Amino acid sequence: MREQLIREVEIIPLEVVVRNVAAGSLSQRLGIPEGEVLPRSIIEFYYKKDELDDPMVSEEHITAFGWASPPEIDDIMSLAVRINDFLSGLFLGVGIRLVDFKIELGRLFEGDMMRIVLADEISPDSCRLWDIKTDEKMDKDRFRRDMGGLLEAYREVANRLGIMNENEPVRGKGPVLVSSNDD
Amino acid sequence: MREQLIREVEIIPLEVVVRNVAAGSLSQRLGIPEGEVLPRSIIEFYYKKDELDDPMVSEEHITAFGWASPPEIDDIMSLAVRINDFLSGLFLGVGIRLVDFKIELGRLFEGDMMRIVLADEISPDSCRLWDIKTDEKMDKDRFRRDMGGLLEAYREVANRLGIMNENEPVRGKGPVLVSSNDD
Repeated sequence: MREQLIREVEIIPLEVVVRNVAAGSLSQRLGIPEGEVLPRSIIEFYYKKDELDDPMVSEEHITAFGWASPPEIDDIMSLAVRINDFLSGLFLGVGIRLVDFKIELGRLFEGDMMRIVLADEISPDSCRLWDIKTDEKMDKDRFRRDMGGLLEAYREVANRLGIMNENEPVRGKGPVLVSSNDD
Repeated sequence: MREQLIREVEIIPLEVVVRNVAAGSLSQRLGIPEGEVLPRSIIEFYYKKDELDDPMVSEEHITAFGWASPPEIDDIMSLAVRINDFLSGLFLGVGIRLVDFKIELGRLFEGDMMRIVLADEISPDSCRLWDIKTDEKMDKDRFRRDMGGLLEAYREVANRLGIMNENEPVRGKGPVLVSSNDD
């Protein structure tokens, strides 16, 4: 059954980051203390190019170099806002603050039509997730900052979301939050 | 007479860079060879904050943090394009390619009206200027890259533009390209 859900998309060479709370590179670059709630959600674009360390780019670069068109950028931003709304709600419901997350997008062709869709997984590898009461980090920053307890944190996120049994081993890079029922 | 031309403006905390040809940080960040003509002119914004090294920002940051409003950004971009058109023509007429330049802008209040105006000078300190035939640098990169001949280059730019006598000493940081007649 699962194979039918997998569709080929043309990958857009951008990483799109949505931020609700200052953390990581935003805090460092703009001098905003980590943990400060942003005046509104901010969407950032990074050019996917490992050898350049995924540099931040603006709409000007994206359109000038043809990585995406202006209407595509509008679609990407609308989609990013919707995903942020959904995930913020989902995590809030289980006592977790969605600080920021990264998504990648692709062009899905259906006959003559094309639409922008979410590509790649969303997992604690690509989100910052903080416990809403304690601000404890429950994401990859535990690994990046050598804090330990990564596996326990990922397991806790999955448990709160009710998508993993307590005793089930963690597979792959981390629990996939959007999971099909026949999994 | 000169004093009457000086007006107080509310400075917008952005440096606006207009690029026609890849050079400097654009080349380094995006891996585009220096000297490559860009598909179209690109406008970049940098947050004016010395202690943060003027980080690049996008419209998202500018509007979220209230540094400028969306209509102000539109005005800034239109003004930047017009200045680029004018200066590109001016320099082309004297055999110089305008590779890129930086401007700063301010809000000028006139009664109930406000408009965005160019603030600060435009000089070879804030432009990249290359000889159109030889690609020789005639700007601050001579200094930044320890190439020598800075004074001669600035003098040559001023000479070609007909705004300085051959034997007049260079004053201040560099010849101001937009000069009043009573100077």
